[in-house]
Amino acid sequence: MLFADLVGVAVFAASGATAGVAKRLDLFGVIFVGFVAALGGGIIRDIVIDVVPPLAFADWRYPTVAALVATATFWLHPQIARLRRTVLVLDAAGLGLFTVTGTLKALDAGVPAVGACLIGMLVGIGGGLGRDLLTGEIPVVLRREIYAVAAFAGAVAVVALERAQMHHDVVLLVPAALIFGVRLVAILRRWSAPLPPTAV
Amino acid sequence: MLFADLVGVAVFAASGATAGVAKRLDLFGVIFVGFVAALGGGIIRDIVIDVVPPLAFADWRYPTVAALVATATFWLHPQIARLRRTVLVLDAAGLGLFTVTGTLKALDAGVPAVGACLIGMLVGIGGGLGRDLLTGEIPVVLRREIYAVAAFAGAVAVVALERAQMHHDVVLLVPAALIFGVRLVAILRRWSAPLPPTAV
Amino acid sequence: MLFADLVGVAVFAASGATAGVAKRLDLFGVIFVGFVAALGGGIIRDIVIDVVPPLAFADWRYPTVAALVATATFWLHPQIARLRRTVLVLDAAGLGLFTVTGTLKALDAGVPAVGACLIGMLVGIGGGLGRDLLTGEIPVVLRREIYAVAAFAGAVAVVALERAQMHHDVVLLVPAALIFGVRLVAILRRWSAPLPPTAV
Repeated sequence: MLFADLVGVAVFAASGATAGVAKRLDLFGVIFVGFVAALGGGIIRDIVIDVVPPLAFADWRYPTVAALVATATFWLHPQIARLRRTVLVLDAAGLGLFTVTGTLKALDAGVPAVGACLIGMLVGIGGGLGRDLLTGEIPVVLRREIYAVAAFAGAVAVVALERAQMHHDVVLLVPAALIFGVRLVAILRRWSAPLPPTAV
Repeated sequence: MLFADLVGVAVFAASGATAGVAKRLDLFGVIFVGFVAALGGGIIRDIVIDVVPPLAFADWRYPTVAALVATATFWLHPQIARLRRTVLVLDAAGLGLFTVTGTLKALDAGVPAVGACLIGMLVGIGGGLGRDLLTGEIPVVLRREIYAVAAFAGAVAVVALERAQMHHDVVLLVPAALIFGVRLVAILRRWSAPLPPTAV
Repeated sequence: MLFADLVGVAVFAASGATAGVAKRLDLFGVIFVGFVAALGGGIIRDIVIDVVPPLAFADWRYPTVAALVATATFWLHPQIARLRRTVLVLDAAGLGLFTVTGTLKALDAGVPAVGACLIGMLVGIGGGLGRDLLTGEIPVVLRREIYAVAAFAGAVAVVALERAQMHHDVVLLVPAALIFGVRLVAILRRWSAPLPPTAV
């Protein structure tokens, strides 16, 4: 579980650091954007459900993994660019993991179902939001193919399976796999949410 | 009271969703910006006065109203654009309501007077700030006619009336009407706060 | 100690207000950006270590100093522009102070060492981050010469001296002087963190 969490941190740190490199930030800027992408969603989650200090500050392994991966991305980014497909797949896995654990932690903290789904989704997409705000972009999650919708659907599945009193592993793995699968199909088929009716 | 609060949520959700449509975001992006505009100020308020989980996550009616209004705005936005004057009036009403209830909640939580006025003002303007940051604009509240100043004046009135031990309805309605009125006059007369002395 | 804190608030309020004037914001917008720059880092710190309401709302002197300095900057900004060198020096002093007190407060609240260093650094750089996000810039701290790195090094020094059970004044003043000195040398020599290996 911790291992899975740290894999998610590593993947999102790589995505944030890559965005920083693309904006020609210096080493520290790249690390910082990597941090925000990897840890931002979890920090918001912990503040909202009153886990203080947030895990990202209370457990040294989280920032350390994020810093190491972001630094490695800084030095190796041309290779990582060539691994773009791998990063997209890992990103989908990270989205699934963060959303599911975020929803479960919110439920455990006594947040009602609708709120827990929203919090879970925010944890999944929050890091990417922060990364795009820092680098001066309109957040890609607001524009791109099915991304947050996949996260929200997975969070709803978590609540439904939890209510049905399924085994803990099922509650964790089935929605994570659902999010992962929907994202992969959305990328492959270029699925997108509808645009406003009257184009400019 | 709850009804009035939800009216405020609906109005701000419509303003956020309209901004999202203008930026050509997809359906989810429009809903998300609507959420932030409608619920962002209240979430910050609840975190600052330690009401966790924030009302926006603890009470399903808040996100549901925001999502429905944002979705309706997405499909109907040309009509809403024609209703622009109506939206401005409702926005002024929402600013009044959110500022007053935010100030009162902060006072109830034991925040001193100056801090409560600041928190009330932030609740009123916070949603619009988030909306503009997400859509890549310098927040309009920082540039436009009397907006946050009206909110701050109303928050000061709340504290003064509360200190004078007026009836609860007076504390609520008089400052809300004050903010509403100042905003309407400011829009009609194009009142503006002073600009820096040396123009470029 | 309180006096030193308020000096930091004043310096950062001046830096935020100057950025607001440069973007042609109105009086309120300039004050608001000044607020965020002066108080934003401390508010995040207090939320993360669960001091609620944050000091910026609980103690009227903090927002009052920030508002007065921002208003003065608004009216006097050509003179302040001529004082640019002075502002840079004061900014370095503010960075040192905010980082050190932030790290100490986090340690006192029971945050482990790595997390306390991160929080301290965030308090130091947080106000500038908020200022740049509000005015639509990629945060300068992500791009410029040694800035956050100096803060982080100072935060590490705080933890090391605290662990060595040095006198409280030493724990406070030595790291603050370290950050201050590194910043000044970095400005004078135009030191910069490394850029990504392959330039565009």
